[in-house]
Amino acid sequence: MRPAAPASAPAPAPAPRNVPSFHEMWRQLEPVGRHAASGGYRRFAWTGADSDCRAWFEEQARTRRLTYEVDRNGNQWAWLGDPARGDAVVTGSHLDSVPDGGAFDGPLGVVSAFAALDELRRRGTHRARPLGIVNFGDEEGARFGLACVGSRLTTGALTVEQAHRLTDGDGITLPQAMEAAGHDPDAIGADPGRLDRIGAFVELHVEQGRALDLSGDRVGIASAIWPHGRWRFDFRGEANHAGTTRLADRRDPMLSYAETVLAARREAELAGAVATFGKIAVEPNGVNAIPSLVRGWLDSRAPDQERLDAVVDGVREAARVHAAAHGVDLDVERESFTPVVEFDHALRDELARILGSGTDLTVPVLGTGAGHDAGILSARVPTAMLFVRNPTGVSHSPAEHATEDDCVAGVLALADVLEGLVRT
Amino acid sequence: MRPAAPASAPAPAPAPRNVPSFHEMWRQLEPVGRHAASGGYRRFAWTGADSDCRAWFEEQARTRRLTYEVDRNGNQWAWLGDPARGDAVVTGSHLDSVPDGGAFDGPLGVVSAFAALDELRRRGTHRARPLGIVNFGDEEGARFGLACVGSRLTTGALTVEQAHRLTDGDGITLPQAMEAAGHDPDAIGADPGRLDRIGAFVELHVEQGRALDLSGDRVGIASAIWPHGRWRFDFRGEANHAGTTRLADRRDPMLSYAETVLAARREAELAGAVATFGKIAVEPNGVNAIPSLVRGWLDSRAPDQERLDAVVDGVREAARVHAAAHGVDLDVERESFTPVVEFDHALRDELARILGSGTDLTVPVLGTGAGHDAGILSARVPTAMLFVRNPTGVSHSPAEHATEDDCVAGVLALADVLEGLVRT
Repeated sequence: MRPAAPASAPAPAPAPRNVPSFHEMWRQLEPVGRHAASGGYRRFAWTGADSDCRAWFEEQARTRRLTYEVDRNGNQWAWLGDPARGDAVVTGSHLDSVPDGGAFDGPLGVVSAFAALDELRRRGTHRARPLGIVNFGDEEGARFGLACVGSRLTTGALTVEQAHRLTDGDGITLPQAMEAAGHDPDAIGADPGRLDRIGAFVELHVEQGRALDLSGDRVGIASAIWPHGRWRFDFRGEANHAGTTRLADRRDPMLSYAETVLAARREAELAGAVATFGKIAVEPNGVNAIPSLVRGWLDSRAPDQERLDAVVDGVREAARVHAAAHGVDLDVERESFTPVVEFDHALRDELARILGSGTDLTVPVLGTGAGHDAGILSARVPTAMLFVRNPTGVSHSPAEHATEDDCVAGVLALADVLEGLVRT
Repeated sequence: MRPAAPASAPAPAPAPRNVPSFHEMWRQLEPVGRHAASGGYRRFAWTGADSDCRAWFEEQARTRRLTYEVDRNGNQWAWLGDPARGDAVVTGSHLDSVPDGGAFDGPLGVVSAFAALDELRRRGTHRARPLGIVNFGDEEGARFGLACVGSRLTTGALTVEQAHRLTDGDGITLPQAMEAAGHDPDAIGADPGRLDRIGAFVELHVEQGRALDLSGDRVGIASAIWPHGRWRFDFRGEANHAGTTRLADRRDPMLSYAETVLAARREAELAGAVATFGKIAVEPNGVNAIPSLVRGWLDSRAPDQERLDAVVDGVREAARVHAAAHGVDLDVERESFTPVVEFDHALRDELARILGSGTDLTVPVLGTGAGHDAGILSARVPTAMLFVRNPTGVSHSPAEHATEDDCVAGVLALADVLEGLVRT
């Protein structure tokens, strides 16, 4: 499983001494962007907390004498070997967070990437291919409402024109935010040459679910990402005084919103899918005012397209019927959509072979409802994912967790996979 | 209905020439604090728009050579005659607004007060009692969350300690806001001497409902303010990833909130009351996050206490049952409550006599679900209210309206009432 480099190979560059261990890196990142009251992280793209995370990444690259660069879209790269040689093996994830997110979603993949690279150096692994570590910018989309902005720009899935229109809750556009953080917004756009030099991308991520906990495994391999999307439901009624307006005279959009929330749960149950109304905006949002507008966002995902369509069509129809019953106008807008992503089968089988070699165990292969940069990249690059067990399945919350032992198992599995790939 | 002053009365002070008419005053106020996008008003206590309204009030007082003063709680007063003589007749209302409120709720009562005083001077009415016009500060409570702060402080219904704890959405306390606007926050508190000098308070207000429209009357008299209150419902679940958390593993507080919204409507229908969930706060409020907290505010009002209790008890029980079913914790807090206010019967009958004299018509007497400074003052001073017809019944919205003819009818009715009261 960990053969020594062949005798004929050139000796690998000696690893710098005293690079921080997994635990030291984890402790360095731990306080960055943590909100004292909630205990969760608020590392939003192009904010001060994001800058601090980026400075940390750069320091890790420099401490290890890796070649450090920021690409045109603000993604950070650290290279061992020259990527211009092509067929590079890349690993990494992201450092930003959802509002009050946990410590693991994203950072576990980046910290594990540096720790796995250190492990390869310790092993004296022969490298036939360049090895890169990446921190993709703005994966969660917490600030500008669109996930995976860094990887979408790079593959061209997000155009420059679309990106320039992204605006945060304070009316600041993405270009303004980039500029304020010292990144040139005129530089952004598709980066096909960069992708052409990558032969394989492997993202390690904390599992967002309990499949590994239920199967008793520390590490799993991703099969596919469920098709998923976001739909905005605008219920427009009539603002009026909550104390003086007779029930019969009301056009209260909160009532049709409430009916639609409950319909979404029923439709998801019927389809074996998930559906969530987790974000809402109300106008005027006054205690003594019937709302003029209730805007709710539906997030829905299913194992296949047919079931996803069944959920969304069912919710839309329920919203239509209940809005009409309350004299409320309804507008439904699909804000984003990602079809099913099947990860590269050859790479997936290679990972299973590497991780299963020397053991009797079969590494579990799981689908997931979460989107990832790996899903975006898979359109252009052979891509795979490793999941590390999450005992509660909780994610996007301060309660998100993986045990120390499982994190170490994740680092070693990633090191094995990288070793298996870079040697060839 | 409008007798000349007795021959023995001293000649009233001549009215200043060229005071602005009702329409001119209305046009002066119209642009102040209007939000261009919504068309509604944002005149919040102790803000710039509020200052502009106050400057306008002071100018009206000075133009009419009335004695102008600001009391310890920031309420503005304009006096014809010396209030120290006691048994004063006072009219007025407020100039602040709810978020994106209409032009009439509050300002109609203040503008009509000045116009009615001008009408009395035109009529040469003999005054046996001082006549005052008041603008109560912070009636709507839009900024600090508590309605009628100016009148509550004056009657002592709100203590100085409670007032000092009031904080707006940006964390600015009421004392800080007062100080920034040039008012001494250390001066605030109960003002019994001021109330002792008032013999009657009459507030004119646009009707918030369609009773006058349905009965075909321009003006009505208030009988009572319904008992009403605000309750905060905190549904606490568990934040989690919307894409990866199985439905069975969720503790989603949005579901129990939705059930409770629908229960409130049912309970209000059963009781012949009103109930509204118009304000909501969600954490973390992310599209792809199951909420950890959904906080909803219930506003409910009913013709009597028994029916109000039935509504609130019913909603609370529904919330309890549905929260338990979803593994969600529930906390219900009563944030404010005002028992039924019966306006002074003798004053109410006097108004009906004055407005009905010389006609065959009976002026309609109506209950209302809205709170008013008049309701607060009624605990200390004989108080009455006049309502002016609102053809749509809409209020707390830019669509709030009264026709020009009905506004004029309101001014004349108020002038008749004031004349009838100050002559005695």
